[in-house]
Amino acid sequence: MDNTQSIVARIVAGTREIMDAPTGNVPLHIPVFGENAAGYVNECITTGWVSSVGKFVDRFEADLAKFTGAKRAVAMVNGTAALHIALKLCGVEPGDEVLLPSLTFVATANAVSYCHATPHFVEVESRTLGIDAKAIRDYLGEIAEVKNGSCTNRKTGNTIRCLIGMHAFGHPFELESVLELCEDFGLNLVEDAAESIGSYYKQQHTGLFGRVGTLSFNGNKTITTGGGGAIITNDDSLADLAKHLTTTGKKPHPYRYFHDMVAHNYRMPNLNAALGCSQLEDLPAILESKRKIAAGYISTFADNSDFEILAEPENCQSNYWLNALVLSDLNAKHHDAVIQQLNQAGIIVRPIWEPLHTLPMYCDAPKMELGVTMNLANRIINLPSTPRIL
Amino acid sequence: MDNTQSIVARIVAGTREIMDAPTGNVPLHIPVFGENAAGYVNECITTGWVSSVGKFVDRFEADLAKFTGAKRAVAMVNGTAALHIALKLCGVEPGDEVLLPSLTFVATANAVSYCHATPHFVEVESRTLGIDAKAIRDYLGEIAEVKNGSCTNRKTGNTIRCLIGMHAFGHPFELESVLELCEDFGLNLVEDAAESIGSYYKQQHTGLFGRVGTLSFNGNKTITTGGGGAIITNDDSLADLAKHLTTTGKKPHPYRYFHDMVAHNYRMPNLNAALGCSQLEDLPAILESKRKIAAGYISTFADNSDFEILAEPENCQSNYWLNALVLSDLNAKHHDAVIQQLNQAGIIVRPIWEPLHTLPMYCDAPKMELGVTMNLANRIINLPSTPRIL
Repeated sequence: MDNTQSIVARIVAGTREIMDAPTGNVPLHIPVFGENAAGYVNECITTGWVSSVGKFVDRFEADLAKFTGAKRAVAMVNGTAALHIALKLCGVEPGDEVLLPSLTFVATANAVSYCHATPHFVEVESRTLGIDAKAIRDYLGEIAEVKNGSCTNRKTGNTIRCLIGMHAFGHPFELESVLELCEDFGLNLVEDAAESIGSYYKQQHTGLFGRVGTLSFNGNKTITTGGGGAIITNDDSLADLAKHLTTTGKKPHPYRYFHDMVAHNYRMPNLNAALGCSQLEDLPAILESKRKIAAGYISTFADNSDFEILAEPENCQSNYWLNALVLSDLNAKHHDAVIQQLNQAGIIVRPIWEPLHTLPMYCDAPKMELGVTMNLANRIINLPSTPRIL
Repeated sequence: MDNTQSIVARIVAGTREIMDAPTGNVPLHIPVFGENAAGYVNECITTGWVSSVGKFVDRFEADLAKFTGAKRAVAMVNGTAALHIALKLCGVEPGDEVLLPSLTFVATANAVSYCHATPHFVEVESRTLGIDAKAIRDYLGEIAEVKNGSCTNRKTGNTIRCLIGMHAFGHPFELESVLELCEDFGLNLVEDAAESIGSYYKQQHTGLFGRVGTLSFNGNKTITTGGGGAIITNDDSLADLAKHLTTTGKKPHPYRYFHDMVAHNYRMPNLNAALGCSQLEDLPAILESKRKIAAGYISTFADNSDFEILAEPENCQSNYWLNALVLSDLNAKHHDAVIQQLNQAGIIVRPIWEPLHTLPMYCDAPKMELGVTMNLANRIINLPSTPRIL
């Protein structure tokens, strides 16, 4: 038995036991709905309140703010829209540059493109899979200068307006050093918390450390609204502007259609928010189940030199959205084969994203040395992580 | 009794009779759901298929294509997203100009702005409330030149890439003369059919005459998916590109995340499509009811010199999404007062949109003479038009 087969055999056996699935396909991550999901959604249909106004939208925002500890939450059609709005809230303008990891879902970079700004890719660290403040500091020291609190790329002359950090698979990135970096270089921090609802850094919910945080409720996420997203913030004026920007910039009036800025149709419909309200009720049980699954993977695969299971960083609590297996450097060459054979065996797994700086539309974008990113991209496999609540 | 009171009294009495609502508030337009709405939506929850993949999305697209007679329909999160994608399909690039009516919902112009192109406002005709091909032809004769099949604004030097026409309140604009205009000036025609599902020009469904048509399923529309929209087209390659552009540009692969262009997260979730499938089943009954309501308004207010009810243009069949009352020129000064008093009397009405060239973000945009637009904006009132199917 070669090492690929040995690794696959161990993962299949371990996963089937942890996920309590002795036979059949074990999905990567599917939605689970509690007892109120159907009732809330049906109420929208019975009352006719299915669209962008309705009690569930307001309640979802209030419940989400309460759960995360944010002063405000603003619900949107999806996490991509939330990122787009977050960048607008930070004043990103055409021609600006925005720093972001290459190791993230493509939406993070696309949101920058929607602003006609330039994605500028930065390095991550292996410990968290999130942005590496020390490496970025060294890089900015070389290429950037700060004047009047604003950061300029000396090579391009463009303003570097923001840094986006992403809490990969629910593991918080190292916020303390990142916040210091942003302070020193005059950068707004946007936290892409699409994957990290229920994840905490030093007891504070992710998404609330930067200027604005963004969440996703896509169908593959910890909780879902079908399609959905939100921004969270402790700044009332930012939240008000976010709501205005997502509701076509219409000024409140009983019947007049007066809009005062170029804005968007990004509001989450009440039908989707109804599902979201039930999902927020389910969230504590979902998180408990997900942490049990993670503990199962970590203990099952503890005595193992071929790969490790990524554990939550120190001082953090992770939602373990998708458990991440990291092959040892020696086994990186088996990455593709392991993924293929696991899927064939009914254990549905996926690699991490193709690093964004390797995609055709972003391969000419500015970037720092991304050796850790490339190394990790060839070693990570996400394991089945669907919670059980019923 | 002054003329405002007389007009209001007649509209209140007529509307209450037509809408069979002797007391209470008569809403402008609220959704009505047939017997399968709750069942289809519940099926999404039971099966877990709530997000951007699922059988209802595919079925909704197939049913929508069948209903309209389009070769293809591609479902999206809303009509604004559909307009944005339609402009991309027509090759609109930053710096281009796009012709569109000033008398439309703000999303039509915002979609142009999302492309970093310039909205260029053109005139409408009173008969249809839609774009006036003759007036636009005269205007383009003055300011534009056509070379190698491409239209250039001689004043700005920019390419005029597209003309967007909008079928206001479901009344088809004069497509034959508009298509000739587009042919002569090398313009792509985009039909904003947000309001005109079930409306036909010479027996062909609106949205299928131009390069691409866009629909909206917002909560206030003839049928709704909570939030939703679609493009319809007879061009397979455009439909394929639309689907790719709305699903993050991801290349099909069982597990790899490879994206080949800057694209969007605009796909309609299955939860919303489920509602849409039931609404398409209800649509024939809804349209029948709406035409009866329109006939009621037209006959009730036939003998009347103070205002008229807009009837479908010749050779057209209108869905009469929102019935439109047009005050006579002499009564234009009563417009605000009539709207206010009707709303106070429980007859929920609205004016037409503020002409877009008067809004702060578009007041400096290029435009032709818009006398008819301004005249109409001060005379139109939309009347309650909710269909009955149960």
